[in-house]
Amino acid sequence: MANLYTSRPKHHVALDCIVFGFEEGELKVLTVKRYFEPLKDQWSLPGDFLEDKESLDQAANRVLHQLTGLKNIYLEQFKTYGEPGRDIAARVISVAYFALIELKPDMEIFGPDFQAHWFAIGEVPRLVFDHDQMLHDALRQVQHRAKNRPIGFELLPERFTMPQLQRLYECIYQREFDRRNFSKKMLSTGLLHRQNEKLKGASKKGAFLYRFDAMKYQELSTKGFYVDFT
Amino acid sequence: MANLYTSRPKHHVALDCIVFGFEEGELKVLTVKRYFEPLKDQWSLPGDFLEDKESLDQAANRVLHQLTGLKNIYLEQFKTYGEPGRDIAARVISVAYFALIELKPDMEIFGPDFQAHWFAIGEVPRLVFDHDQMLHDALRQVQHRAKNRPIGFELLPERFTMPQLQRLYECIYQREFDRRNFSKKMLSTGLLHRQNEKLKGASKKGAFLYRFDAMKYQELSTKGFYVDFT
Repeated sequence: MANLYTSRPKHHVALDCIVFGFEEGELKVLTVKRYFEPLKDQWSLPGDFLEDKESLDQAANRVLHQLTGLKNIYLEQFKTYGEPGRDIAARVISVAYFALIELKPDMEIFGPDFQAHWFAIGEVPRLVFDHDQMLHDALRQVQHRAKNRPIGFELLPERFTMPQLQRLYECIYQREFDRRNFSKKMLSTGLLHRQNEKLKGASKKGAFLYRFDAMKYQELSTKGFYVDFT
Repeated sequence: MANLYTSRPKHHVALDCIVFGFEEGELKVLTVKRYFEPLKDQWSLPGDFLEDKESLDQAANRVLHQLTGLKNIYLEQFKTYGEPGRDIAARVISVAYFALIELKPDMEIFGPDFQAHWFAIGEVPRLVFDHDQMLHDALRQVQHRAKNRPIGFELLPERFTMPQLQRLYECIYQREFDRRNFSKKMLSTGLLHRQNEKLKGASKKGAFLYRFDAMKYQELSTKGFYVDFT
């Protein structure tokens, strides 16, 4: 059936994923080396074009799965980029997603045809197109999220120390916090359970291990809260 | 130049605007009657297809301007919808924006070929496609925004009473708040200046008029805050 739609323009639609991981006290982001033109061999966020029959969420999950082998990762759509000149080869509207994952030392980033790399925020090389802007916006989104909802469950191991948690927040906000003040504010949320065990090594006394209270975490994720470290 | 892009699918891309206005103690949303197939004469959010040379923001502004004559309205992109079956005539990826505007009695919604109408939230008829969901999501976005940043500057007249402000928040959250508690929390933000003048009429005593402190409003819009009425 001919209708008004057929005369209207069509556009390439792509997905780009900003995947944050936390490892060795650093917040990192997953980047890939492009293996096709344009801009072959330059660093880029992982992405691909939307296929005809998949939803945006499905496509974002496919992209991530193809690149990392990871499945069932919570990807959150945060912004769509559509400046006419943003891609040099053709006009592409790109829907951007971010994800937070726990980086494990044995995690394999596979893909036969390309290189993938986790760069620490602050050491990311110049990315193609408007991907620097996407990364910047995604980090702002995570900062905003961290103020209004608990964060860390996805990024930290099951048990962690207060210094590890503080380091995560410092990486997210890219500044340092007062140790005592941070600890006080964090504990006041009711999110943390102190374990009867210490992690030895970092200091002579060792640091107590904590875990998240799953019920409280769920409750505050839904209801929201406000923690400001400034 | 042939490249990998040319073999990849293209899609229609559209913009849809959820425009909220506040009038006579009601939060309203702008809807239009579709004047073309499919679903001619059914109610829809204002929207149109993305043209080749315009950015998403430009297109959203064009849609709103064409419909209302309004220019320089702050439209905020909040989500992109792309389920394969969301539009019945063809696959359309739609980037949704919301706007908050002050509704004035003399505001003309023009457009020679269609009808536009402001429906109070709660009285909106069934909308086409997934527009009910878009409206629902946009309202959630405004609720979230109202918790974390000052709101109301765009929706209220320059001077307003505390009951008017409370009514706005009640419309946004679709529930009633305690008068004394609301007033206390609002005043504690430092956002309001009480004027030496009352609005007579509603009650025998009249109600004091307030205006927003523009500096404080700007500061809290950037920095964020947290006001919870629950």
